[in-house]
Amino acid sequence: MSGELAARVLAGDVRAAARLMRLVDDGQPSAEPELRAIFPHTGRAQIVGITGNPGAGKSTLVDRLIAHLRKLGKTVGVLAVDPTSPFTGGAILGDRLRMQDHALDAGVFIRSMATRGQLGGLSRATGDCVRVLDAMGKDVILIETVGVGQDEVEVCRLAHTTVVVVVPGLGDDIQAIKAGILEVADIFAVNKADREGAERTVRDLVHMLELNHAMLTPSDVVPWEIPIIKTVAARDEGTVELWDAIARHHQMLASGPGLLARETMRAKEELVRLLRERLLRVALHRLAQQGAQLDQLAARIARREIDPYGVADAAARE
Amino acid sequence: MSGELAARVLAGDVRAAARLMRLVDDGQPSAEPELRAIFPHTGRAQIVGITGNPGAGKSTLVDRLIAHLRKLGKTVGVLAVDPTSPFTGGAILGDRLRMQDHALDAGVFIRSMATRGQLGGLSRATGDCVRVLDAMGKDVILIETVGVGQDEVEVCRLAHTTVVVVVPGLGDDIQAIKAGILEVADIFAVNKADREGAERTVRDLVHMLELNHAMLTPSDVVPWEIPIIKTVAARDEGTVELWDAIARHHQMLASGPGLLARETMRAKEELVRLLRERLLRVALHRLAQQGAQLDQLAARIARREIDPYGVADAAARE
Repeated sequence: MSGELAARVLAGDVRAAARLMRLVDDGQPSAEPELRAIFPHTGRAQIVGITGNPGAGKSTLVDRLIAHLRKLGKTVGVLAVDPTSPFTGGAILGDRLRMQDHALDAGVFIRSMATRGQLGGLSRATGDCVRVLDAMGKDVILIETVGVGQDEVEVCRLAHTTVVVVVPGLGDDIQAIKAGILEVADIFAVNKADREGAERTVRDLVHMLELNHAMLTPSDVVPWEIPIIKTVAARDEGTVELWDAIARHHQMLASGPGLLARETMRAKEELVRLLRERLLRVALHRLAQQGAQLDQLAARIARREIDPYGVADAAARE
Repeated sequence: MSGELAARVLAGDVRAAARLMRLVDDGQPSAEPELRAIFPHTGRAQIVGITGNPGAGKSTLVDRLIAHLRKLGKTVGVLAVDPTSPFTGGAILGDRLRMQDHALDAGVFIRSMATRGQLGGLSRATGDCVRVLDAMGKDVILIETVGVGQDEVEVCRLAHTTVVVVVPGLGDDIQAIKAGILEVADIFAVNKADREGAERTVRDLVHMLELNHAMLTPSDVVPWEIPIIKTVAARDEGTVELWDAIARHHQMLASGPGLLARETMRAKEELVRLLRERLLRVALHRLAQQGAQLDQLAARIARREIDPYGVADAAARE
């Protein structure tokens, strides 16, 4: 029944939340009335993104943050975003298992998201799952993602605060940080900071941030000096400092127009995405009713019998 | 005047082609009637994608392929797709400069594409520029791209044949090849094959391909054994073998339904993209006429006064 799952999610029912997230991940239309029903009850959670290259130790760091947050009395939701690779998927899932230390803690809810390979599909599903955790009443939601592609950058944009995790000794690691990731970084964590080269990595980051600052100094940007926190997640060092930086960033956003501005930007992106989906669905349905199947149109375009611009114009005008 | 640039492009005018590509790259609406006018005259060129991680030697390899193709009497267009990074952009542009050896050769046209950061914008612009080069009469179009994100994978899908370039000695290099890139690989080039570990890289690739083959053996897939070609681009070794593999792959596609199938798939993706754009433009215009600006709607959604699903439904239904 429509709305039934939503009611149970709002009451904090773990099984209902898991079921709704599965519907979301599978792209089931039946998820939507439930998402709609929980929507007015969201917007309460603090959303934190943790991103970085594979091997940066993100999962361990997330583990430590969960433990610290529990000590502070906060409930935690975690979305671990896996790139779907038949070759690396296994290893990453293995990593995830460590987080199951918290599996018996009712104050923690952990879920792995699968990349569907569909452009934009991942950030949509992740955004909806964030909302489910938010509606469940989780105080903090951690989104862990591998910071490699555009799709992952989109995921980071769901967060209020994004931590980019780097490690020393990966050679031109800093160079390899993509521009998109830089743009979403609110905090840098230099993990495995007991390794050789940690100071150099910190210096490189400082230099890069100065350079970036010199190039881009928009006047409407919030006055936030991106902190660089050294951590050794394996030994639980720097966890408190990292969380303090995250809390400070969130406080800065919440005490000014920053938080609402981020939420508004996110709402705008989501609205455009939803509009696009629905409009396309309606247009394809209409085309099909006129006997024009997408595959046939594509085949005619490929043979250069018709041109795509004309077809799109005609379909959009009706 | 509409169509004027197109006529000059079709006559092989280099400056007109450069101008049209600039319009495309800037997302100027005035590009569209020109693209529409050249469309029926496209579909002749052989399109080859060259992708791989930074430092794999793609630019040098492309240089060598250009020289070889010119010897074969073929004209060449090159699109070098740069990730927009204020930190790595410089270096990559430096690399590109080497290709300017061919700058005085009228049979070669080289252009760098800038990533706009907009999801999907890069593959759209690149696709349109491929069409311009095609309409100019270039026999072979090489698209060089860094194989890191989803956006770049989309770019590869524009090609008839995609070469994934890997180098030995980057540790877990093979592991790092993303699933998406694997799916687009028609040929592997192991560049810098004079380096230690080259044989191991080849073995790893063979193993990975066997594994992949065992997992995915769809019946509708063309019978193509992905070749692994060793090259030392810096010394022009393996260039001929690489081109022969590319030519063989194209021949295989062209002699069966494969080429039209790829073109049809591409046409379908493009049509969906164009439809989405146009429909959204029409819907936003309509919303604005009703006094509902996107930014205001987003702000109301962020404040949880309205929900995005309802707004999208209402706008799409009209």
